[in-house]
This record gives sequence, C-alpha cells and structure tokens, in this order.
Amino acid sequence: MTITLYDLAGAEADRRFSPFCWRVRMALAHKGLEVATVPWRFTEKDALAPTRQGRVPVIVDGGKWINDSWAIADYLETAYPDRPSLFGGTAGHAATRFIQGWGDTILHPGIARFVMLDIWKHVDERDKAYFRKSREERFGMSLEAVQAGREDRLAAFRQSLQPLRSLLDAQPFVGGDKPLYGDYIVFGGFQWARNISDFKLLDPSDPIHAWRERMLDLFDGLARKSKGYPG
Amino acid sequence: MTITLYDLAGAEADRRFSPFCWRVRMALAHKGLEVATVPWRFTEKDALAPTRQGRVPVIVDGGKWINDSWAIADYLETAYPDRPSLFGGTAGHAATRFIQGWGDTILHPGIARFVMLDIWKHVDERDKAYFRKSREERFGMSLEAVQAGREDRLAAFRQSLQPLRSLLDAQPFVGGDKPLYGDYIVFGGFQWARNISDFKLLDPSDPIHAWRERMLDLFDGLARKSKGYPG
Repeated sequence: MTITLYDLAGAEADRRFSPFCWRVRMALAHKGLEVATVPWRFTEKDALAPTRQGRVPVIVDGGKWINDSWAIADYLETAYPDRPSLFGGTAGHAATRFIQGWGDTILHPGIARFVMLDIWKHVDERDKAYFRKSREERFGMSLEAVQAGREDRLAAFRQSLQPLRSLLDAQPFVGGDKPLYGDYIVFGGFQWARNISDFKLLDPSDPIHAWRERMLDLFDGLARKSKGYPG
Repeated sequence: MTITLYDLAGAEADRRFSPFCWRVRMALAHKGLEVATVPWRFTEKDALAPTRQGRVPVIVDGGKWINDSWAIADYLETAYPDRPSLFGGTAGHAATRFIQGWGDTILHPGIARFVMLDIWKHVDERDKAYFRKSREERFGMSLEAVQAGREDRLAAFRQSLQPLRSLLDAQPFVGGDKPLYGDYIVFGGFQWARNISDFKLLDPSDPIHAWRERMLDLFDGLARKSKGYPG
C-alpha cells in the first residue's frame, strides 16, 4: 500500500526543501516503500488536522497519521521490520539520537543563516508573509540581515562540520559501509540548502562533498533528480 | 589475566587526567576486566617503545601491546565478545565514530582552553618544560593566554554541548538505557577537566551535569573515587 507524505513545497510544486521531509523521504526509500508525496505549504495547517499540529513531515499509512521525522522513522522501523533497518538495532538507534541532536542544534542553525532569504524567494506567494514574519521574529532581524555576510561565515561553518569529516576519514557513511538513518539526518540539511539556494556550502575537495555525492546517487538518484541547484 | 594500562599521571601518581585513558579505563570496567594501571608521564616515551609511538593510552594484554583509545576499544570488543558489548553491533560502532569525532574536534578543544594552565600546574616536574613548550607551540600563545578569560567563554562552550543535551532529553545515556562506549568518549573529556581543574564547566541544573553524576557512579564509583576536584 502506498504511503502518503505531506512534503513542504515552494511556489513550484516540485521544489521540495524541508530538511526534515528529506530525512523521511530517504528513510522511505531505504525501506523500499512506495510513497505518494503531497506538496504542502506552510499555511496549509488544516490539511494536517488529524495530527493536531501544523508541521511536516506527516505521513499517512493505511489510515494512520504520524508526524515528526524521528517518530516517523521509529514507526517505519517498527511497522516494517522485514525491510532494511534504519538504525541497525537499539545501540545504533541510541547513538543516532546524538547525530539528530547535532543536526538540529548545530548543522541546521548553521545552514539557516546561509539560505534564509533564498528560502523566502522560493516559497509560495501564500506563504511569503507568514514565512517572513515568523522567521524574522525567531532571528530578531530581517531575512536580509540573517543572510548578509554569509561568505565571511563560511570558514567557521565548514569547521563546525569536523565531527562528520572525522568520521568520513574512517568509513564511507555515517552508518558505516552503507547509509543508515544517521546519514539521512545529516543529508537532509544539505538537501535543504541545495534545493533552495545556489550558495556553495562545501568545497569540492571536502570529503563531505564526496559523501554528499554518494548520497545524491542513492536510490537511483532520488535526491539528485529533485529540483534544486546542483553543484 | 590482568590487563596493564599505561595511564597518564601528574606529579601525584594517583592523579589520572588523560581523557583518552579515561575512555579506556571505563571501557575496561564495562567489560569487567581486571586492570593494573601504570602511572606514566609525558616524557616517558621509551616505556611505550613496543608500540612505536609515544602516547597513551597503551594496554598490554597477554603480551600484546595496543595503543590508541579507539583501537583499544575495538580490540576489547573483539577479544572479549562474551563480555558486555561496548558498541552494540556494527551500526552502533559506526555511529559512535561520529561521537568520537565530536569529542575529539569540538568537546576536547573546547575544554582545553579552560584547563590548559591548570594541567601544567599538576604535571610532574619532569614534564613541565615539555608540556609548556609543546602546548604553547600548538596554540601559538602562552598557557596563561590560552586559559585567560575563560569565564567569558563559558556560555559558548555550554551552547556547544547542545547535541548531548538534546539526546539526554530522550534517554539517560548516549548508549540509550545504559552506558556504552559513546558515553565513555564524552565522559573522558569531563574527567580530564574534573581531575585537573577546579573550574566548573557545567551548571548543576544542566541535564549534562546529572548525566555526569550517573557516570561518576558507575562501576562502584570508579571515576568519582579518582583524585580530582569534585563538584
């Protein structure tokens, strides 16, 4: 049975740029599950009413509604135990929480300041006022100011990726020899940037760049084929 | 058979403050293995000659010499498969590399600038000149300058711990319900600071403080009983 994924979209319905939706999209592909995505805009809170909250990703599987990327990954792991594991057991699950913590509190805030205005440029007309107001309140400054001077922040951002670079010295994926949910967590952040902005976060000589290329190739180029700014 | 651990010591032979040695000390206790520690000073490179390098931790097990904390953990996991696992399988092992990367490239450099002069105060007389010279070259400034103004850096340091704090919102240990090698990696950094400096890195209300207390209690208070600055 096909799973439905409510997936954040821009003015163009096929521009999908939520880092959290990308975690789920890759996790569904990892499990080999059929998915039908529904383009969703920030202001379409009503569409998610059964989850009693207003954010994506949300999946619907056989009438069950599940929200929150981590909860969805847990659900998929439990509901489809015969498909390839996302976590590789309880210890993998536990340690992946650290990677999620790093993604949510270091990687995403780091990337946000490079792309916040670029996101606004791509969101649907209906979302523009909402997006600007909510994000400017969160940052305490204009979107233009959030993104300003981003070239000067690039070295510090790249330095903040050292834990990932250090891991990639020893193995090709966060999951080891093959990608696991930890890879999708980190990759989601880079897909967010790739699909919304032509700003180059990674130097082509960076091992993280090579890892991202490997991730873009997965599942017959699922992520690479998505609308964005290649390179 | 008792395993020998060459363990960095200060002027007092029972002051043990290497973060990497603490990773191994905890890992040995986790495996329930008997250990005899040998206090070792920075300048005693000759004692480690069989490993063809000059740093601890080094263990000797039945005539086999193994150096490097990660290699030692791998060795213990392979050599003692019937004892409690340090990684909980290959996925746990792979994800723990990320935690090691974070420990080595974010946590340790962060802590270093709070305690570098305090370390110098505690190292053996024979080590003082070596330690000052090698660390001042590494930092490009005097030990006094490295540590100066540390109160002003405390907020940023605590902020850098968000990935761990985020994990501890969901589970009591990095390993999940119980500690695994990922916990010992992070804890090693805090034992380094605790055993060499009275500077308080953590606020008592911080969930990381509570986690550290749980870690200090493990193995009949192994780490808590070690010579240091409680609190």
